[in-house]
Amino acid sequence: MSHATLVRNGRIVTAGDDFVADLLIEGGRIEAIGRALPSGPGMSVHDATGLLVLPGAVDVHTHLDSATPTASTVDDFAAGTRAAAFGGTTTVVDYCTPPPGASLMAGLEDWHRRRANACVDVGAHMIVLDAGAATLAEMKTLVEREGISSFKFFMAYPGALMLEDGALFTALRAAGALGALSCVHAENGPVIQSLVQAALAQGQTAPRHHALTRPALLEGEAAQRAIDLAELAQAPLYVVHLSTAQALQAVQRARQRGLPVHAETCPQYLLLDDSVYAGEGFEGAKYVMSPPIRHASHGVALWRGLQAGDIQTVATDHCAFTYGEQPHGLRHSKRLGLAAFNRIPNGAPGLETRLELMHDAAVLQHGLSLHRLVDLLATAPARLFGLFPRKGTVAVGSDADLVLFDPHERWTVRAAAHHSLSDYSLFEGRPVTGRVKKVFLRGQCIVDGPHWLGREGMGQYLSRAASG
Amino acid sequence: MSHATLVRNGRIVTAGDDFVADLLIEGGRIEAIGRALPSGPGMSVHDATGLLVLPGAVDVHTHLDSATPTASTVDDFAAGTRAAAFGGTTTVVDYCTPPPGASLMAGLEDWHRRRANACVDVGAHMIVLDAGAATLAEMKTLVEREGISSFKFFMAYPGALMLEDGALFTALRAAGALGALSCVHAENGPVIQSLVQAALAQGQTAPRHHALTRPALLEGEAAQRAIDLAELAQAPLYVVHLSTAQALQAVQRARQRGLPVHAETCPQYLLLDDSVYAGEGFEGAKYVMSPPIRHASHGVALWRGLQAGDIQTVATDHCAFTYGEQPHGLRHSKRLGLAAFNRIPNGAPGLETRLELMHDAAVLQHGLSLHRLVDLLATAPARLFGLFPRKGTVAVGSDADLVLFDPHERWTVRAAAHHSLSDYSLFEGRPVTGRVKKVFLRGQCIVDGPHWLGREGMGQYLSRAASG
Amino acid sequence: MSHATLVRNGRIVTAGDDFVADLLIEGGRIEAIGRALPSGPGMSVHDATGLLVLPGAVDVHTHLDSATPTASTVDDFAAGTRAAAFGGTTTVVDYCTPPPGASLMAGLEDWHRRRANACVDVGAHMIVLDAGAATLAEMKTLVEREGISSFKFFMAYPGALMLEDGALFTALRAAGALGALSCVHAENGPVIQSLVQAALAQGQTAPRHHALTRPALLEGEAAQRAIDLAELAQAPLYVVHLSTAQALQAVQRARQRGLPVHAETCPQYLLLDDSVYAGEGFEGAKYVMSPPIRHASHGVALWRGLQAGDIQTVATDHCAFTYGEQPHGLRHSKRLGLAAFNRIPNGAPGLETRLELMHDAAVLQHGLSLHRLVDLLATAPARLFGLFPRKGTVAVGSDADLVLFDPHERWTVRAAAHHSLSDYSLFEGRPVTGRVKKVFLRGQCIVDGPHWLGREGMGQYLSRAASG
Amino acid sequence: MSHATLVRNGRIVTAGDDFVADLLIEGGRIEAIGRALPSGPGMSVHDATGLLVLPGAVDVHTHLDSATPTASTVDDFAAGTRAAAFGGTTTVVDYCTPPPGASLMAGLEDWHRRRANACVDVGAHMIVLDAGAATLAEMKTLVEREGISSFKFFMAYPGALMLEDGALFTALRAAGALGALSCVHAENGPVIQSLVQAALAQGQTAPRHHALTRPALLEGEAAQRAIDLAELAQAPLYVVHLSTAQALQAVQRARQRGLPVHAETCPQYLLLDDSVYAGEGFEGAKYVMSPPIRHASHGVALWRGLQAGDIQTVATDHCAFTYGEQPHGLRHSKRLGLAAFNRIPNGAPGLETRLELMHDAAVLQHGLSLHRLVDLLATAPARLFGLFPRKGTVAVGSDADLVLFDPHERWTVRAAAHHSLSDYSLFEGRPVTGRVKKVFLRGQCIVDGPHWLGREGMGQYLSRAASG
Repeated sequence: MSHATLVRNGRIVTAGDDFVADLLIEGGRIEAIGRALPSGPGMSVHDATGLLVLPGAVDVHTHLDSATPTASTVDDFAAGTRAAAFGGTTTVVDYCTPPPGASLMAGLEDWHRRRANACVDVGAHMIVLDAGAATLAEMKTLVEREGISSFKFFMAYPGALMLEDGALFTALRAAGALGALSCVHAENGPVIQSLVQAALAQGQTAPRHHALTRPALLEGEAAQRAIDLAELAQAPLYVVHLSTAQALQAVQRARQRGLPVHAETCPQYLLLDDSVYAGEGFEGAKYVMSPPIRHASHGVALWRGLQAGDIQTVATDHCAFTYGEQPHGLRHSKRLGLAAFNRIPNGAPGLETRLELMHDAAVLQHGLSLHRLVDLLATAPARLFGLFPRKGTVAVGSDADLVLFDPHERWTVRAAAHHSLSDYSLFEGRPVTGRVKKVFLRGQCIVDGPHWLGREGMGQYLSRAASG
Repeated sequence: MSHATLVRNGRIVTAGDDFVADLLIEGGRIEAIGRALPSGPGMSVHDATGLLVLPGAVDVHTHLDSATPTASTVDDFAAGTRAAAFGGTTTVVDYCTPPPGASLMAGLEDWHRRRANACVDVGAHMIVLDAGAATLAEMKTLVEREGISSFKFFMAYPGALMLEDGALFTALRAAGALGALSCVHAENGPVIQSLVQAALAQGQTAPRHHALTRPALLEGEAAQRAIDLAELAQAPLYVVHLSTAQALQAVQRARQRGLPVHAETCPQYLLLDDSVYAGEGFEGAKYVMSPPIRHASHGVALWRGLQAGDIQTVATDHCAFTYGEQPHGLRHSKRLGLAAFNRIPNGAPGLETRLELMHDAAVLQHGLSLHRLVDLLATAPARLFGLFPRKGTVAVGSDADLVLFDPHERWTVRAAAHHSLSDYSLFEGRPVTGRVKKVFLRGQCIVDGPHWLGREGMGQYLSRAASG
Repeated sequence: MSHATLVRNGRIVTAGDDFVADLLIEGGRIEAIGRALPSGPGMSVHDATGLLVLPGAVDVHTHLDSATPTASTVDDFAAGTRAAAFGGTTTVVDYCTPPPGASLMAGLEDWHRRRANACVDVGAHMIVLDAGAATLAEMKTLVEREGISSFKFFMAYPGALMLEDGALFTALRAAGALGALSCVHAENGPVIQSLVQAALAQGQTAPRHHALTRPALLEGEAAQRAIDLAELAQAPLYVVHLSTAQALQAVQRARQRGLPVHAETCPQYLLLDDSVYAGEGFEGAKYVMSPPIRHASHGVALWRGLQAGDIQTVATDHCAFTYGEQPHGLRHSKRLGLAAFNRIPNGAPGLETRLELMHDAAVLQHGLSLHRLVDLLATAPARLFGLFPRKGTVAVGSDADLVLFDPHERWTVRAAAHHSLSDYSLFEGRPVTGRVKKVFLRGQCIVDGPHWLGREGMGQYLSRAASG
Repeated sequence: MSHATLVRNGRIVTAGDDFVADLLIEGGRIEAIGRALPSGPGMSVHDATGLLVLPGAVDVHTHLDSATPTASTVDDFAAGTRAAAFGGTTTVVDYCTPPPGASLMAGLEDWHRRRANACVDVGAHMIVLDAGAATLAEMKTLVEREGISSFKFFMAYPGALMLEDGALFTALRAAGALGALSCVHAENGPVIQSLVQAALAQGQTAPRHHALTRPALLEGEAAQRAIDLAELAQAPLYVVHLSTAQALQAVQRARQRGLPVHAETCPQYLLLDDSVYAGEGFEGAKYVMSPPIRHASHGVALWRGLQAGDIQTVATDHCAFTYGEQPHGLRHSKRLGLAAFNRIPNGAPGLETRLELMHDAAVLQHGLSLHRLVDLLATAPARLFGLFPRKGTVAVGSDADLVLFDPHERWTVRAAAHHSLSDYSLFEGRPVTGRVKKVFLRGQCIVDGPHWLGREGMGQYLSRAASG
């Protein structure tokens, strides 16, 4: 981008600073920050008076255009990242799942094809399904040549995605040796499988049994196990979508011992509770995800974890399906599980609402600072996943990914107004204070109020360095 | 036994009481306790003046006459229980391992054949190797008809004894529903297997690598996992041969939350440290057992656990092999593992020295009371495993299993003087204060100083009730 | 007592044992325990078929015939210990408070005068009000010559009973060096005083403000402080009337570190909650004691502490006043505090109901064993305060203090039927299962159903040894 | 300052960011940050190529020109703040101690007189010695009119500085209600006094007895007590010079519960251990401060606390005396305590070495990030004490307090080369990597290598807002 842009008089808030100034953008990057910077001919000038100027948010947990044998997420990269942009998220790190039997590299190639129409910048974590020599060799290649510095290991979903403990340990050790960050989905899959089979055998097929067969204790157990194995393997660890008090305690104990253990949670675990599953109807299917929404006491613990700094990031786990069958078809719909909860596609949309919900809940209701909001949603994920300082802050030299945010505007979450292809929101009807007004991606204004000014395919691939 | 016996003037010490009195024994049971009980014609009279009179000790962790495909323990029931008797142990609860592919009932029948020549009373725990419907049905039969009220589940030894988590959970739930106690060997087998393979691949074959490939962390992890699964399964839990500080902390946290979680440790984890594995020679093979002997810091924690009451029992895990190949042959010898540590038969002798070592270490050196000694070695195991009040105490109506103990005699542990068929002791050369002088089994004096007065086969089978 | 007594066929339950047998009593002591003991001429014979035979209970926390400048407890030793006897308590260790300005020895002499009409055996703890050289010298005399092996230090009541931290530390060090047990009342007195003054300044005079000005946090703080100071002073510690979760956690942490720290709680903290203070009326004055009755969550924690073994004893803190002014007069009445809660005499009756309430609540409702009941109420206090094995168990040579207890009888607590001179019960109307039928003091039957067979003055002074 | 200054091409590191840019300074503040900012006529230009540009460090714990009846610190504001400047510290928040009997306002007036010759900007915390109504009223005035938003309460030094618990609680509640931050010196003074008297009575007069009479346990106790009282008082808390593992654990537990509890430590507690007191000679007097230097195990815990984020700031507790009597006289010298350790003036110099020592130890040796270094030494203290964003960061609009730092230069600490008037350093002879090259105060270069370009009295008074 050759022409310069000036953002005037905004209140710039980063993880560390908070001041009113102008921003000068050139070549997609921030060139200068100062008072009364001179404008020049041909410059675009945006007045940010009265608005917050935040770094574009970074969502490090999404599943876009992702398929299983029976179901497929409804949002492809174009739809999902446009939704992200409207919500102030300008960087997405998506989980690449290699197809069954495929090599990691083949999985990555396929992912690159799918991500080509992304509207914001994207990186990939690689999901690792075995710890054989060939896979370990590919992990090395991914880190050293492909810009993928984080892996994900599943302790859930035996027979599908799960690594048993021996393989998990081997993979953790390999990741640690490569300087990569190991993400784990911490739930004890085999015990859950046993509970699911017992429930189905008793005719318990309604969505609420999804939650009942994934008790909080089994996440705490798995988190502790992951931490222990990672300590032994000398591997930095990142526990994804942490949702329980017990798992948080495991993380806290580890961090107090000085271990490099990090935790992510998601807005749904902070803002909802398991009353969403009440009743035997199918409405609960909207909330079928893993881990499930927990009892309210866990939410209380998670907020304390955010306040105490024991949880470092808030991501979405955006994995969107539709509730109805139309118009996208049954393979994208929760209705695949009408007969039995274990057939309900796991996941929900969230990419578009994270920043606004968290501003409202964390800053206005729970008293966290704006600095901490920026850190949780942008700076810390960028640092942990090797994107900082290009992403995650507002600083000279950084990409000019910016959100102009009105902290006072009141509105109400409505799926009908969203850009995801999903037909519902976990937060439908929730009143929110604070709204994204304009979004810039590398200096280009791509969202202006309700207007989409970006284009599919403008998102760049982010080759990531080791965790910072 | 028709004739009566009088034990005069001993200091009777139980878990609760401590007084000087006479004991009248009739029909193998304690008939009366009192001052100056009258003697009658035909009574045997034993003067216990100056001696402690303790309940016969109860060892709830042995492997007698136990075979694996390549090795077999050197002590059969006759040899092992005679050694037990010389050490003051009059009740043994042995682990019955069903042969590969055999039903639990078939395993039990075989065990009954082997235990027929026992010299002291014996019961059995059943080791459970799968959680299929047939096995669950047999568990019910064992509890309800065969007097077996405890099961053991292995979290170590994948491919051989290990139950994976789903099966472990199913088995725990079944045991809990039956009112049985679930014993677990808590070590993460798959990760250990991975470490063992890595060590061997690097040519690390000496015995000390046995310990290095079974790090303390993996016991702590498994203990926490067992506790979590048992909580979910509503199953009382008993962690066998607990050897690490981290596992102890897991037990402590559970107990403080009111969970029925119990822990056993062994003299070797209290009295030795991992310096026994120093060097690349084969001497360390004597100490090859699982879990291995730990760093001294763990011993410190275990003593605190004994003092605080968080460890309830001290058993031996007697599983005897010879160090030399002669005279019993290679299949009983540690030398099976000369080429590689993972071929060394796991286990060591201990049945004969438990009471004397623990009296010396716990009472004289660490300040535990005689009550607590009796509780750890006799009363608590008898209660937990459904043998109380028949076994584990000195009370009217209880079996007259008694130990006359001189708390002042000094001697030195020498394998050459022992009755196990093994050719070494873990505690060779250790000076000890306190010695077993006479032992009674159901009123019959079977040990009198160095003299064996019992006979093979006199031990009875103990049909056990649910945990007390 | 020259004649012998035989108690036939009872179910004898001690902290360690449980069996059916006869008891032979001679000279006030248990002479023999056995099956079908022969009766002789002139023997009293009591049939205990179907009854439990328990050791007489030991209450180590009472304030009998105790005066402050404005108030005086309503129960003298005669009335209080007769009430104790009816409730199955045959040993009382009372707190001796030296009058202001008096020496410890003078206080003791006065206490001996007052205790002379006791109906059960009594010992004394000495309350220490300063740590000057004269007092330290008297402490030595008390331990070595007067049979007083425990002291009490107050962290509450500044200006009256409180020792400030320097004196507390000095006194703890002296007690530890003497082998005596240090009892502490753990509440932060100065901060409570500040809260009380603030409440009164705002016109908050109703009884419920007693509880509001003694928050749980201030007991947890003081318990932790006492533990830290005792650790430094190398003094075994006994926290009296522990009532909060936080104090319990402090005790648990200490015990896990191997420190000799013990805790006592009382039935009122286990069975009641702070709803007793609801409203602005004066009814709450009945429950004015220190610490106050707590929120129900603390009770839940205390029950866990009992189950986990972190609380060792249950005593009463019997300190009886009347609610009404008649017939004993205002100086014995709660009405002294009609105008302001801080004038209400602190304390309540409890000596008569402890065993029956705890049998019902601990054994029948919370699943603790009869052994544990006996331990909490008799054996453990006897051991800790140097009375074992004379008191606290049923064993040959022990005092024949016995309770014949019907575990099935149902009745209802009514102050009108009690023997304390107080006119109310904390537990009025509470249905209870299990009742004391007969009570023996040193072989003499002093209670037989509703009949009093004992006499004032028959209680002996118990010279106590160091803690066991 | 009318003329502008340009700092070219430095690597600007803040708590949140890290980038290479130019800085434009006008009017003492940062006007712009950008690439290749244009220089103008009359601008001072400083080339920072290869250097870090850090915010001027903020030291929130000093005692300058401070007197007790017998001793007086050797550094006045001129000497102390010049030393600070040479070490990269451009803001000092000093503790104002009101003279005995004086009001807080009188104490502040006196402090203002003394601080008038400061070379860097200074603020004051007020030490509070009672909690009477007059003092509480003055606290309000100080917060609302005098720019003093933090108070200090001593739990040590009974009879001199200590507030007993009732007064402490009252003062905490007042501070909390005012939105002020409460700093506590957490040591149990009365128990220490008792230990000191006992030591002196035994003739233990050498400096090492200073440490022996202030055991670690008494800091942990006091920290826990301060936290409990502050929770009850609803007062944000700041534990000064935290030096022990136990105190840290108390802080960690509090933070995990979401309480606003903060901790400061000092370089001496991180870098030294109690071997400095070895021997009976007087050399140990150099290290006599309160709390004393601890056993090395505490240092290990403190480093973990820094890594885990449970310690938020590193200050100096600069309180300088001389070791020798010359040339400043006995009243400034450790030699006041030649006869007895309790007469040794407490404290040591540290203002000049904090940034360089911590860069070396924290970043180079312990792997903390440069961001975290800046946060600990500048940003977090500025935030906590109401100075942010004017101080503590490099951002547009902030004071241009800057340190140009060479992270590679190696040098050795020598008291002889320092600017404090003290004649020794705690860190004499320590090799250090990383050195301050230039320092700017509000845009003016006051230190240029070894050259002092500032002047006495140029430091401004900082009126502070409430804690951020």
